[in-house]
Amino acid sequence: MVSTRSTTEPRTLSAELPHITPGQTVRLQGWVHRRRELAALTFLVLRDRTGLAQVVVKPGPAGMPEVPPEETTVEVTGVATANPQAPGGIEVTEPVITALTEPAATPPVELWRPALNASLPTLLDHAPVTWRHPAQRVKWELAAASLRGFRDTLDRAGFTEIHTPKFVASATESGANVFEVDYFGRPAYLAQSPQFYKQQMVGVFERVYEVGPVFRAEPHDTVRHLAEYVSLDAELGFIEDHRDVLRVLRDVLAGMVAAIHEHAGPAVELSGAEIPVVPEEIPVIHFRDALKRVGAPEDEPDLAPEHERALGAWAREEHGSDFVAVEGYPMAKRPFYTHGWSRPAGPSEEDRWSNSFDLLFRGLELVTGGQRLHRPSAYDAAIRARGEDPAAYASYLQAFEHGMPPHGGFAIGLERWTGRLVRAANVREVTLFPRDLNRLAP
Amino acid sequence: MVSTRSTTEPRTLSAELPHITPGQTVRLQGWVHRRRELAALTFLVLRDRTGLAQVVVKPGPAGMPEVPPEETTVEVTGVATANPQAPGGIEVTEPVITALTEPAATPPVELWRPALNASLPTLLDHAPVTWRHPAQRVKWELAAASLRGFRDTLDRAGFTEIHTPKFVASATESGANVFEVDYFGRPAYLAQSPQFYKQQMVGVFERVYEVGPVFRAEPHDTVRHLAEYVSLDAELGFIEDHRDVLRVLRDVLAGMVAAIHEHAGPAVELSGAEIPVVPEEIPVIHFRDALKRVGAPEDEPDLAPEHERALGAWAREEHGSDFVAVEGYPMAKRPFYTHGWSRPAGPSEEDRWSNSFDLLFRGLELVTGGQRLHRPSAYDAAIRARGEDPAAYASYLQAFEHGMPPHGGFAIGLERWTGRLVRAANVREVTLFPRDLNRLAP
Repeated sequence: MVSTRSTTEPRTLSAELPHITPGQTVRLQGWVHRRRELAALTFLVLRDRTGLAQVVVKPGPAGMPEVPPEETTVEVTGVATANPQAPGGIEVTEPVITALTEPAATPPVELWRPALNASLPTLLDHAPVTWRHPAQRVKWELAAASLRGFRDTLDRAGFTEIHTPKFVASATESGANVFEVDYFGRPAYLAQSPQFYKQQMVGVFERVYEVGPVFRAEPHDTVRHLAEYVSLDAELGFIEDHRDVLRVLRDVLAGMVAAIHEHAGPAVELSGAEIPVVPEEIPVIHFRDALKRVGAPEDEPDLAPEHERALGAWAREEHGSDFVAVEGYPMAKRPFYTHGWSRPAGPSEEDRWSNSFDLLFRGLELVTGGQRLHRPSAYDAAIRARGEDPAAYASYLQAFEHGMPPHGGFAIGLERWTGRLVRAANVREVTLFPRDLNRLAP
Repeated sequence: MVSTRSTTEPRTLSAELPHITPGQTVRLQGWVHRRRELAALTFLVLRDRTGLAQVVVKPGPAGMPEVPPEETTVEVTGVATANPQAPGGIEVTEPVITALTEPAATPPVELWRPALNASLPTLLDHAPVTWRHPAQRVKWELAAASLRGFRDTLDRAGFTEIHTPKFVASATESGANVFEVDYFGRPAYLAQSPQFYKQQMVGVFERVYEVGPVFRAEPHDTVRHLAEYVSLDAELGFIEDHRDVLRVLRDVLAGMVAAIHEHAGPAVELSGAEIPVVPEEIPVIHFRDALKRVGAPEDEPDLAPEHERALGAWAREEHGSDFVAVEGYPMAKRPFYTHGWSRPAGPSEEDRWSNSFDLLFRGLELVTGGQRLHRPSAYDAAIRARGEDPAAYASYLQAFEHGMPPHGGFAIGLERWTGRLVRAANVREVTLFPRDLNRLAP
């Protein structure tokens, strides 16, 4: 019954099948998700981008029609038939099955099983195929919906999307962990972030965002570091201080969550992701008070993972929030363009603290943000204080010499965000084709 | 009259000023776009992300208040006052002006002049500042709106956004013009396109798109090549042939144009961009017929620029269209994954032609697209025909061995699109920070 291809009927997606009147002819296209051969009939479960459809194959005059092996792409023309036991109450009978390619090789993992039983290396080595598993695919659907929410929120708030160069002339922002490229016979570097460029573009558009790859030559093989990841960057001018940045970040997170519910509802269900509720106002605690709360020495320059977890638990109990912002991080641990502490209320040793924050999501750092310096004299002093020559930063600094507003911004790592939604043990589980110290393929 | 900063009034954007009731106090923030000192008063034209506002500065009890030099960021609190000669009919009087940074250095070009009179090198060397000029900034606003339209159209059509790696293990798609990176002590390469990955992801999501940087080590210094540009890629499965791809491309272009009108109306006006009308159906001409029409020898393997111009003129005259698709490009000039000609109507020497097309926009190539091979045996043959070993493509080919649908896609170069909208002589005029053979900064 494998026939020449018919295009008389428009394509029906599997999700549309429940809405088809029984008796109508339908034309499905997709993958053979599962082929189950019983004595008298064969079930063909067809998978397309919208879900699964059940096709019932029975013997015809020429005997039992052949159903191609799993993962082969097929076109199925048949009759929509009511069956309360079929998904959505409609299955396809009297099918004419046309293979659209050669019989597929047996997949490295059984994609038709409800759970994806594969080790991480198997998952990654066969990524082009393992991402087809519905339980795996939905993880990326959460990511895609989040990107949509990020942009929609910022578009509505008057932000302009930018795309800044990934080739940079010097490894200025942070000398370590930078990739070197042979750029027409001379060295160039891959941008570790769009930081310098997004700041300069605040001088043009006031409010900008960029979604794109950033590159870190991470020499450590950890569960949360990648050599390349997707950074969701925003930067805005005419702020009072970092609290204005935090307010925008709150709206962005709320927009990402709303977009997940709107565009990836089935993915939420299938992935079992715990989508957070973003409070109207994210609780904020000063770094100094955070140290006290977790019982750490008051001269600690950073929060240890167990401190972050304790603060996450506190935010949950005290504020009913999955999110908490720790503001005022010590200047010593922040990059040179960080603005010093300026809020009227707060600790008095102002030189020590900064107008910057980390946002913890369920006790883990998700976002770093804050206010940046904007006065040329402040840059000059900050760069000299590092023992460097401001001349090395000339092209960055020209934006400030020619007038910049008080500004700040933040960066969200896409993979960390998605990873935490689905409680992935390793960020590689939610990255389409991860790149790290050891992995450069597929 | 320079005072401490006041935050009692919410910020008014310059575009909101015409809607303010005269007599109300307003607080503006922005750049000193123009400072014009007359005998009895000074005009301060303030620029923010929404436009310009006129502020009238008159002598007070302490004499003439100081107005900071152009490009200094300022906050202005004053009274909204009707003046038919002011932009929008409202100006700000009795201003209190607070500088938000140190007095700005004189810009490399006069940003307040209606026309930006600067050579291309000046424009590029001082990009962080020259992009501030309204006539320059609107060019990017057209780009940003186009990106929004690209995504919105594809989101509505069931596409999934993807982000694929820029680090790749081998320079397989095209050995030439590839950048090499020191990847933890071994060589890696920068992706020249997401081609292989977007195809593999068709196996997962059926319909995918990616907006991101692509890297070409172009050894030529031309007006339309860059070492790094933004590629708008789409790929979709279960097509009949390349005509289905072309239909999606048409909708995408129409969506980009609609988004420009919706989100960048003022930019269209200020830039003088000629925004095209995208016809319901883009006229299509076969490569063989195109050669005949332009009087080229029938064995020409490619279209010369003058041929493209002639075809553009023909599409304009014959079909009233700024766009024309040339289909059936010779296989000899297409990459190995290109699908051969399969349409029932058309030239008979089928081996020679392909199911691919170039889209010409006003007589210049803007998009390349087409159908790809999807059968594993076809890949095997195509790779061997190039004298290469299929084993070198193992990680790419696993998607095909495990079942892929007939599919195809296209890629639009963002800078070429925007460049043609504003009739830029050089693609660098519409690139935020261009990268080429000679330029790696700012």
